[in-house]
Amino acid sequence: MTEQERRLCEGFLFTDQYQLTMAQLYYRRGLHEQLVQFDYFFRSYPDYGSHKAGYCINAGLEWLVSWMLKTRITKEDIAELKSQTGPLGERVFNDDFLDWLYENGSFDRLSLRAIPEGRVVHPHEPVVSVQGSLALCQILETSLLNHLNYQILVATKASRIKASAHGRPLLEFGLRRAQGTGGNAGSRAALIGGADFSSNVGVSHVLGYPPKGTHAHSMVQVFQGLGMSELDAFRAYAEEYPDNCILLVDTIDTLKSGLPNALKVFEELRSKGYKPRGVRLDSGDLAYLSLRAHKMLNEAGFDDVWIVLSNELDELVVWQILEEIRREAPRMGIDADALINRLVYGVGTHLITSWGSPALSAAYKLTAVYQEHEWKPTIKVSESLEKIPEPGFKNVWRIYNGRGTATADLLTCGDEDPAVMDSLYLQHPSDSGKHRMLETSDIGDIQLLLVDVLNEGNVVYDFPDLETIRRQRDNDLERLDEGVKRIINPHIYHVSLSEKLWNLKQYLIQKVGGKS
Amino acid sequence: MTEQERRLCEGFLFTDQYQLTMAQLYYRRGLHEQLVQFDYFFRSYPDYGSHKAGYCINAGLEWLVSWMLKTRITKEDIAELKSQTGPLGERVFNDDFLDWLYENGSFDRLSLRAIPEGRVVHPHEPVVSVQGSLALCQILETSLLNHLNYQILVATKASRIKASAHGRPLLEFGLRRAQGTGGNAGSRAALIGGADFSSNVGVSHVLGYPPKGTHAHSMVQVFQGLGMSELDAFRAYAEEYPDNCILLVDTIDTLKSGLPNALKVFEELRSKGYKPRGVRLDSGDLAYLSLRAHKMLNEAGFDDVWIVLSNELDELVVWQILEEIRREAPRMGIDADALINRLVYGVGTHLITSWGSPALSAAYKLTAVYQEHEWKPTIKVSESLEKIPEPGFKNVWRIYNGRGTATADLLTCGDEDPAVMDSLYLQHPSDSGKHRMLETSDIGDIQLLLVDVLNEGNVVYDFPDLETIRRQRDNDLERLDEGVKRIINPHIYHVSLSEKLWNLKQYLIQKVGGKS
Repeated sequence: MTEQERRLCEGFLFTDQYQLTMAQLYYRRGLHEQLVQFDYFFRSYPDYGSHKAGYCINAGLEWLVSWMLKTRITKEDIAELKSQTGPLGERVFNDDFLDWLYENGSFDRLSLRAIPEGRVVHPHEPVVSVQGSLALCQILETSLLNHLNYQILVATKASRIKASAHGRPLLEFGLRRAQGTGGNAGSRAALIGGADFSSNVGVSHVLGYPPKGTHAHSMVQVFQGLGMSELDAFRAYAEEYPDNCILLVDTIDTLKSGLPNALKVFEELRSKGYKPRGVRLDSGDLAYLSLRAHKMLNEAGFDDVWIVLSNELDELVVWQILEEIRREAPRMGIDADALINRLVYGVGTHLITSWGSPALSAAYKLTAVYQEHEWKPTIKVSESLEKIPEPGFKNVWRIYNGRGTATADLLTCGDEDPAVMDSLYLQHPSDSGKHRMLETSDIGDIQLLLVDVLNEGNVVYDFPDLETIRRQRDNDLERLDEGVKRIINPHIYHVSLSEKLWNLKQYLIQKVGGKS
Repeated sequence: MTEQERRLCEGFLFTDQYQLTMAQLYYRRGLHEQLVQFDYFFRSYPDYGSHKAGYCINAGLEWLVSWMLKTRITKEDIAELKSQTGPLGERVFNDDFLDWLYENGSFDRLSLRAIPEGRVVHPHEPVVSVQGSLALCQILETSLLNHLNYQILVATKASRIKASAHGRPLLEFGLRRAQGTGGNAGSRAALIGGADFSSNVGVSHVLGYPPKGTHAHSMVQVFQGLGMSELDAFRAYAEEYPDNCILLVDTIDTLKSGLPNALKVFEELRSKGYKPRGVRLDSGDLAYLSLRAHKMLNEAGFDDVWIVLSNELDELVVWQILEEIRREAPRMGIDADALINRLVYGVGTHLITSWGSPALSAAYKLTAVYQEHEWKPTIKVSESLEKIPEPGFKNVWRIYNGRGTATADLLTCGDEDPAVMDSLYLQHPSDSGKHRMLETSDIGDIQLLLVDVLNEGNVVYDFPDLETIRRQRDNDLERLDEGVKRIINPHIYHVSLSEKLWNLKQYLIQKVGGKS
């Protein structure tokens, strides 16, 4: 792909064809400048098959906005659109529309509210809400979904693996298993959600986190291929990186070759005054091998070097490894906690692909049109009540109880302020029979989650750095119920509608003749 | 992300940290210019859980080579590497290595052989084989895996869905569910593997295939939100695209609203001399709704408009829909084949993510080092015999039987030519007991699969256009046994080693002391 081709397929035309044909139709009908609101929300938590998330970590916003602000249609884009023909050879896009598009083809006049990155988010709530002209809000859809869906998925997976690993260091190793350059977004999202570092060199530098890594099997193989040994390879590595020596010990045989050779090299390092850093296990029974490695390392006086585990890890595999370590350690005379507290995890494939749930069930739906000086809510009916988006201009609030734990997220109409209500009526978004009342005395704090990001194209938000985003994440996770954070069968967190919003939704459903 | 940041994380530093630390070690040891060979191969077919592939479609080569030829390290890259520090604050990369890297940091002197895109490929065989200096072959690993793994996955999935759909038109709709800009690689791979067109505007133009699409629910909603109706929306669309009118009929109620309104508009089009194009069903029971739609359309005299199906389709869902149509059609007085032959499929999420198997189990392994004027094979032992790569400089041959069907792929040492052998000994790559003999009389044709692509950086290959790649794919699929192409429980295609290669492998395994 040439540089010009890259610009063509990552710029304004990074969208679906129907967005442009609809935009042309809106233009012809004089609807293209009609002010509308689209909301982005996901319908359900990632379901990995044998396990399921009980919360998501928000991510992707800054890169989306950055793309929106730098992208505008080019002459080359217009020329391509001009060349499109329909079944009878007629042009698909006509000059009048293309002239308008060339003048107006950018996203720098839209307004956008969003929940900040790093925050815990839940289904049904608008994570991003966009307002602006119909044609451009429509064309934006594909890129917006693309930017947000994937980063939320990976940030969520990273958070789960980090939780499963009891907060021990988590390294993201997945670039080789990602979808092309999209892997950079994955590494970023992993760093937001729970990974401490990434092996991805470029994006780590862009984000200000030093990339991390060990060495590959090929290094040992190269030495072997040239008539030398694994020990020679380890010695060379230790000589090169004496203060940062992590040795991959499974190239030949972990217990018979890799670990004994690593111990020799570690002793040589120690005798020269260096502190060896760790060993990495990348195959075999990781629980058993880490127990054996722990014992061998301790017996040689290397109690504090890391044991880095990798090889198709995810939150369940890590959980299972730790269970097995806890069960087997006593029989081997090992303090399980001492071992668990020296473990470090390298996670590639399952994190970067959100294995088991590689796409987020998210949508970007029209929820309001501006008419006669006000935002009028719209509805999209569906055969399934759960799939009907919440209508209108809304706010999202997080309600904390007296102990500081988040008890529900509440969606209200834009003119409602739960902070001044006497009590809160929390209505399930689709099941009319499910509601509860929260008295003021039950409420510790109420937070508005949506913040203003773009105001008619002007950035009115101070994008936080990754460290701030990670603190926000930790803060939100700390205030989330343990049951909701469970890796398997989590409790269902309540996302509720105010009575007013519920009534509005029912009214609109009946008005358009849908089922309710 | 700024343009400079993008260049930083999509250029030479689009790699893993350990590739660079190993490269520095090789530099220090004087091994960086050592000529080596790495082979790229996958270990097993994608396994989607309830079903599994019996073949893969090769894809990704041209974009990989294009990336290799345009990428070289920049001053900015060097400055970033210079800034990296280890645990004690010492520099990770030193000036001598960085000076060498700045002078030599590109892939334009490597040699590369590969199996062409669009060809059917199988596990264990080198799909790409790279030769060149150790440091650069090592640094290339991450990007090479990233470019090839994903496109092979998606091309394979597309081929399966196309087969399940009995060759009916397949549209790729997945950009919104992809990993960032990686979605463009996904669209390309889908077009190589089996999709006829994509909705992805930019990449469709880059590849010379016009993007396709219908319209979204939001179009109907916009009209409703502004006080108009679904019928108004359909009329507007038909007026704008009279020769290419495909109407999405499930926004309100498929049978009660969408289809009746579509029929009205189609009749209006017909009365004006236009030919309506189709309806799209995007929710509900697609088998039942397509039967009903078929009947309604036929009764109104629209026997030849398409019924486009979408909504979380994959090869199994399509297979199940067709089964149900075949079962139910007679009871409804419908000719099942007539319905099946008007169906068109829009596939998004499950295709672009290779749902169920979102990463390919592939590897890039050192297989030879050049010493004393010859390529010396190397081995990477493993606790599992299946994971041991085939050593040395090799060729891959496809053996066809007398009926023109591919019967096995044969890996041989580089100096073997099966065309001049009296009979072919086909040895299973890891199970010593499994082998068979093919007499010349059983052999119809023998093809060499690997072709020269780069010769010390010079392109010696004429990259075919997508149309040629697709013809190659069709040709290969036609010559593949039906059992191997089965969607569920496919027959195992034989990938075999020649006796000489098998003996070499055993010798090397014993030499390095591995298990055999």
